[in-house]
Amino acid sequence: MKNKVYIYDTTLRDGAQGVKISYSLEDKLVITKKLDELGVDYIEGGWPNKSNVKTIEYFKRVKELDLKNSKIAAFGSTRSPLNKVEDDPTLSSLLEAETPVLTIFGKTWDLHVTKVLKTSLEENLVMIEDSVSYLKKHNKEVIFIAEHFFDGYKYNPDYTLKCLLAAEKASADSIVLADTNGGTTVDEIHDITKEIYKTIKIPLGIHSHNDMELAVANSLAAVKNGFTQIQGTMNGFGERCGNANLTTIIPILSLKMNFQTIPDASLCKLTENARFIYDIANIPPNENQPFIGQNAFSHKAGVHANAIIKESTSYEFINPMKVGNSRNILVSEQAGVSSLVYKAKELGITLEKDDTKTRDLLFKLKELENEGYEFESADASLKLFLMKQLFPYKQYFDLVDFRVIVETKHLEIFSDATIKIKVKGVLEHTAAEGNGPVNALDNALKKALCKFYPSIGENHLIDYKVRVIEGTSGTSAKVKVFIETKDLKEVWTTVGVSENIIKASWIALVDSVEYKLLRDEQELKDIASSK
Amino acid sequence: MKNKVYIYDTTLRDGAQGVKISYSLEDKLVITKKLDELGVDYIEGGWPNKSNVKTIEYFKRVKELDLKNSKIAAFGSTRSPLNKVEDDPTLSSLLEAETPVLTIFGKTWDLHVTKVLKTSLEENLVMIEDSVSYLKKHNKEVIFIAEHFFDGYKYNPDYTLKCLLAAEKASADSIVLADTNGGTTVDEIHDITKEIYKTIKIPLGIHSHNDMELAVANSLAAVKNGFTQIQGTMNGFGERCGNANLTTIIPILSLKMNFQTIPDASLCKLTENARFIYDIANIPPNENQPFIGQNAFSHKAGVHANAIIKESTSYEFINPMKVGNSRNILVSEQAGVSSLVYKAKELGITLEKDDTKTRDLLFKLKELENEGYEFESADASLKLFLMKQLFPYKQYFDLVDFRVIVETKHLEIFSDATIKIKVKGVLEHTAAEGNGPVNALDNALKKALCKFYPSIGENHLIDYKVRVIEGTSGTSAKVKVFIETKDLKEVWTTVGVSENIIKASWIALVDSVEYKLLRDEQELKDIASSK
Repeated sequence: MKNKVYIYDTTLRDGAQGVKISYSLEDKLVITKKLDELGVDYIEGGWPNKSNVKTIEYFKRVKELDLKNSKIAAFGSTRSPLNKVEDDPTLSSLLEAETPVLTIFGKTWDLHVTKVLKTSLEENLVMIEDSVSYLKKHNKEVIFIAEHFFDGYKYNPDYTLKCLLAAEKASADSIVLADTNGGTTVDEIHDITKEIYKTIKIPLGIHSHNDMELAVANSLAAVKNGFTQIQGTMNGFGERCGNANLTTIIPILSLKMNFQTIPDASLCKLTENARFIYDIANIPPNENQPFIGQNAFSHKAGVHANAIIKESTSYEFINPMKVGNSRNILVSEQAGVSSLVYKAKELGITLEKDDTKTRDLLFKLKELENEGYEFESADASLKLFLMKQLFPYKQYFDLVDFRVIVETKHLEIFSDATIKIKVKGVLEHTAAEGNGPVNALDNALKKALCKFYPSIGENHLIDYKVRVIEGTSGTSAKVKVFIETKDLKEVWTTVGVSENIIKASWIALVDSVEYKLLRDEQELKDIASSK
Repeated sequence: MKNKVYIYDTTLRDGAQGVKISYSLEDKLVITKKLDELGVDYIEGGWPNKSNVKTIEYFKRVKELDLKNSKIAAFGSTRSPLNKVEDDPTLSSLLEAETPVLTIFGKTWDLHVTKVLKTSLEENLVMIEDSVSYLKKHNKEVIFIAEHFFDGYKYNPDYTLKCLLAAEKASADSIVLADTNGGTTVDEIHDITKEIYKTIKIPLGIHSHNDMELAVANSLAAVKNGFTQIQGTMNGFGERCGNANLTTIIPILSLKMNFQTIPDASLCKLTENARFIYDIANIPPNENQPFIGQNAFSHKAGVHANAIIKESTSYEFINPMKVGNSRNILVSEQAGVSSLVYKAKELGITLEKDDTKTRDLLFKLKELENEGYEFESADASLKLFLMKQLFPYKQYFDLVDFRVIVETKHLEIFSDATIKIKVKGVLEHTAAEGNGPVNALDNALKKALCKFYPSIGENHLIDYKVRVIEGTSGTSAKVKVFIETKDLKEVWTTVGVSENIIKASWIALVDSVEYKLLRDEQELKDIASSK
């Protein structure tokens, strides 16, 4: 029987303090479902105070969800020094949220009690005790968070301990020590949590911040000393440098330290879930993020990539499939011939390592990379490049000319693209509008092609990214455009580079179309040959 | 007297294994100067093997730099099992680099010796010993890196130890234990480094990877056990999830743990240096990065932002100025009136907290944020918005219409913008070309304005960023454009949002121009009033 560590997710509350993060009500509900599916023990939905209409509505709506694994918690604080518990608006709004779990924070650092809260140290102890008691009387699971605990402990350990004892006396279900400012080292966490574990008899938890890149290590140090709850956020979202990253902590505890966290069967959903939350938050995923990042199991160095092909366990500390991620050998400047061979194989193309043709391909790829191309995240463009180089390639169409016009008329804006292409010997000249220049160009190209290749109508642009590549002294800046396209079967990414954003977009668009046509044609051939 | 920890920087070698990182020779030399200025003890320049022409050239050119603080190291491996030391190309290319320090890695995990290197365990010990001896004979400082040490130790501790003893016997100057796969926990590092410190009598170092977000904690755990060298990279650059992040480790050791790392006077250059390296690597900085990130000392939550204004030490674990960073109060959905008042003050605008006008402003800002605007990184647009709302604002010009055409002619591409604006009652109708549509629009706008506002010619676009904001179900996607502009006095950022990329760019361009004109006008007034 494994020991259990309870995972308390605060992506929706503390995570939403992150710069650039702002969830709609629907976002919060969708994330709640995903977290429940993953199987975290607690989901903290927000602080339901009066001015926070969205959060109040969330707690109403969340009751309608049929959650399987997680308990919903509402967050707030101990009562104000000015109020009795019965009249305190914070406590009553907590109860009105009607969640099974209520989490309240209280001050434990004497400096904060007197300077920020502006009350006496004695009154603060009473506030903790009667706030917890009051909520417990309403049959709630009550979690008490000791805010700024570790900083407070360094200045006045006796007082911080009194705060915890007040919560324990009031029958809190668990006490969570918070390193609110994130300035505590692993050694300090180790020593202090060890000390507290001796004194406090109810379950203990930890809430860390990542201001010194130590939030994961600090959470694990507390677990080592008998703490059984970890508070954190998916992807480490949160204010400043973020909260403790649950997407890292969960697999370390489950796979490396033999604890029970989320259900074993859910662990392989971790990558998908974490990336989904990035999407909802509209934040580009951290590609280097442990366990779930696109690069977490990527191998670029020639020597490593070579070795991993020989012996996969020797360069990977876990099997990426356990967390739903996958290995990725990158074709890049530093990669040698063996990486290219491996990557091509992944794309369904057989290359021979000792063939001079393979070396030529590598050389040409590196030239394109020097121009600013980047194939690491544009597999479709890479595959197209390889196919064109290796096999007789029939051009699906030839561009004669295009023109894009974006103009205002009486301050309304219009985008219009005209396109002239030659398809199977026929000149097609057509035009289309769009809600922007690239959309207009995409519409016109599809319109010109659909007579000849009807399946092109299935293509749907789902993402468009632009990065400026600063030129070194003397050269002007280029833009790199990535286009993500979807049809009924898959999603693929193509890349274009140019000094002109429209041209770069055009190159990526053409790759996207050609990739689709080539793939469909190959599938037809495969069907024909199998008959 | 503080204890010294030697900082060994491998940004240029192991850091360059990071996805999307590719340095030119000039880049490497510029980074070398910056690292020397910061005062790291060692700078590892690369692996000077025959096929690596750029690195060989680097070691030639780096000798011409007048470095003040850092020693340059060349990186390689022990000899091949097939060669004698005198004939081994790796060892001879190391000597040809003519650096004072040579760092070689050797295998210490038995699995790797037999499966990857394909030699015997005995031969590998001889390889370590005679490779180190050979380099020492040439009067070099020799650092031996025990590759995969911690994984190897778990399987066959005796053999890993024999490898270290071979290097020690051959008079290596120091031995560095590498957690190459990044899969070792803090507890394991703690126990193993403690053990090794008892046995090995020469200086020890650690080289960690961040696959479990533990590279910083693991490096510090080794230091606690008497290790005196830390290998890592600036910003944690490196393969997969990166190397140990020196920009985090240095300030923790210096400011929180009382060790001597880089010179005290250099610590305040940390932020500037780290961001400079992001720029050179052409990677968008991690805004949430500890110590040096733009958000590292940002405060968004109403309650926090409010408290920090009352008592700055209570929510910050160090003074941001110590590492050359600064505090940043964000105006955002979650921020309340006090954050807006504080932010406005930073921009030179006085708001009263209890004024209804201030609440109206906050409400309007939140509406814009709902449309997709983001002022957290666009101070100039925010300032302009506040000025327009608070003071009688005279429009510098009115748009009548614009038109942008991007077209190919015989496969060459041309961008042309036509603009019609009213300035001081005069209708200006003009046109300009550019190397892309936004550049053409910028040129046309400046051309139309310069007759009336000659200083506008000083504006120079230095960065252009586009982000797609996915619409929630039913709405179409918008784009958010950020434009960074520079003149002779400062750099500022503006933002525009629209479904149309050209219109979003236009909005950001207009803000950029208006910001400049308004600032210049205010300065003139200030000069006039001071007379």
